Amino acid sequence: MNNSLSQVLKQIKPLDSKALEAARARQNELTKPRGSLGRLEELSVRIAGIKGEIIRGFEHKAIVTMAADHGVVEEGVTLYPQEVTKQMVFNFLNGGAGINVLAQFIGARVVVVDMGVVGGFEPHPNLICKMIDFGTRNMAKGPAMTRQQALDAIESGIAVIEAEIAKGLDIVGTGDMGIGNTSASSAIAAAITGKPAEKITGRGEGIDDEQLAHKIKVVQKALDVNRPDSRDPIDILSKVGGFEIGGLAGVMLGAAAHRIPVVIDGFISGAAALVAAKLAPELKDYLIAAHLSAESGHKVLLQHLGLTPLLSLKMRLGEGTGAALGIAIVEAAVKTLAEMATFAEAGVSQAQKEDE
Amino acid sequence: MNNSLSQVLKQIKPLDSKALEAARARQNELTKPRGSLGRLEELSVRIAGIKGEIIRGFEHKAIVTMAADHGVVEEGVTLYPQEVTKQMVFNFLNGGAGINVLAQFIGARVVVVDMGVVGGFEPHPNLICKMIDFGTRNMAKGPAMTRQQALDAIESGIAVIEAEIAKGLDIVGTGDMGIGNTSASSAIAAAITGKPAEKITGRGEGIDDEQLAHKIKVVQKALDVNRPDSRDPIDILSKVGGFEIGGLAGVMLGAAAHRIPVVIDGFISGAAALVAAKLAPELKDYLIAAHLSAESGHKVLLQHLGLTPLLSLKMRLGEGTGAALGIAIVEAAVKTLAEMATFAEAGVSQAQKEDE
Repeated sequence: MNNSLSQVLKQIKPLDSKALEAARARQNELTKPRGSLGRLEELSVRIAGIKGEIIRGFEHKAIVTMAADHGVVEEGVTLYPQEVTKQMVFNFLNGGAGINVLAQFIGARVVVVDMGVVGGFEPHPNLICKMIDFGTRNMAKGPAMTRQQALDAIESGIAVIEAEIAKGLDIVGTGDMGIGNTSASSAIAAAITGKPAEKITGRGEGIDDEQLAHKIKVVQKALDVNRPDSRDPIDILSKVGGFEIGGLAGVMLGAAAHRIPVVIDGFISGAAALVAAKLAPELKDYLIAAHLSAESGHKVLLQHLGLTPLLSLKMRLGEGTGAALGIAIVEAAVKTLAEMATFAEAGVSQAQKEDE
Repeated sequence: MNNSLSQVLKQIKPLDSKALEAARARQNELTKPRGSLGRLEELSVRIAGIKGEIIRGFEHKAIVTMAADHGVVEEGVTLYPQEVTKQMVFNFLNGGAGINVLAQFIGARVVVVDMGVVGGFEPHPNLICKMIDFGTRNMAKGPAMTRQQALDAIESGIAVIEAEIAKGLDIVGTGDMGIGNTSASSAIAAAITGKPAEKITGRGEGIDDEQLAHKIKVVQKALDVNRPDSRDPIDILSKVGGFEIGGLAGVMLGAAAHRIPVVIDGFISGAAALVAAKLAPELKDYLIAAHLSAESGHKVLLQHLGLTPLLSLKMRLGEGTGAALGIAIVEAAVKTLAEMATFAEAGVSQAQKEDE
């Protein structure tokens, strides 16, 4: 294992129990019936536990959107041609994609990372180059990448998030772009959760029944050909993963090591979270599942992680779009804890039962 | 029926079919797989239909929070004493309540209206006085209010929203405050949906099993004593309703008459929507259900209205807190439609199937 990864794994600590307790106590003093803000209360407490104190909001927010290509597209598992990965990265850089609009709406910057897009780019001030290779190899025929590439992808993710933390970062959302990456994510999820391919493989950008049956076969073939070791997340990532998935796992681990909450997007971010949480189980406390994707395997994956999604809006775009909306909900939660008046401050009577 | 109510009912028109069509067409040209923004797409289309055009966002947002007291509290159906209604109105005016924090977070003003709080207030620049009476009478013993008071409450709501529209308003959320108002809302919901009291009566601020059994009996008694006419929403409102519930029904009707989308909060706003939609069935197209409340009857009520909530965060505070978060999701939806690039603008290839 490389240096920065092993260091980061050691740095991920349990939540701060004193801050959790202080946040819970304050929630119970705020002018509302106890528990009446539901999941906002739970979120506000968890953020306090992550940060080590009750905070007032998130000054610096970012969505890290990582892109890469997938050799498995030659099996005909997607509706869109491979060049759409590259075209969409241009769209991110030009501000025209869904994630640009939603990130701006919540006041977050978008950090676009090329983890291995076929065709490559000219240098661009807003594009971070962490290319591992010109796309993965076809996992239906052999390993998607070498073990070293898998480690490099994670390390690159750590480097990206550490650079963002240095610029100022209070919460991060994860996002992805990569034609073919729902196939890789399905294979990872099957390998880690032990569920069969047909339970965890979905329609991606919107394939029909026949195409779905074919995609399930391809995912199963990738698992059969490669036999990833379910106890070894690096083995799984290298055999059936993707560079952006490894990168996102690194982002999550690096963020948690620095006590930054991570709002994970949909199915691809979820697959990255499976890999990352297998490396560091304490990571889960730092992860907030933004939404339940329309991608059918996402529910199984989140259950395995023990995460309950905040939103269920039938979204399945990726890019970090769900994460952006999730960050808004988390920030709303944090603000209620910080800014609402207590019963004593407002001179409001408490419930008769609670007074006794 | 009074003048402004009958006029408003005539003014509520179907959604603009040309704008709906234009919004749907644009959604299908945006750089994402069709349908991949899920409910955001549906919302953006509906807002275009309400406004009559594709809009860029909401410049002026408001939460109208209406407060009143309920005579039924003398039956011992609540945890909090009646004076909490008044205390919480002070809290709204001082900016310390949940709705203040969440409205500020989404950039909305809070419009606080006294529809009939026991004890009354001194004049305050941010408090609108539309007092119908010093609280309703005890519905377990007879009608909560007169028929004229019910009409006055709705008319007052229309007047409030028309004044806000005159100041500038692009979207409105509804909210409530009134100790005892879940009992009134349960009785309204039972009368309109035809469901038995025990299916539609919940725990309000958090009562226990024994208190819930008592509350159900009180709601049933109110229905038995008053026998509201299920075909006549004014009769229902007057016999088992509340002044803030009538006021909110007026807000909804007045907003729809002026093509302003209405994001409804939880159970109490839902009861108001039942009354309002019974007066004008076309209203439903203008209503967006922000969230599914933890209050158990809310689901039944939304199903009756044919509305699917956007969020499910186990909130049950009222005040408009759920509506505030709902407005954020609606605005996110509107921004994606207005601001995302099309395939042609971004030079992105479309799906192979869709190209054919």
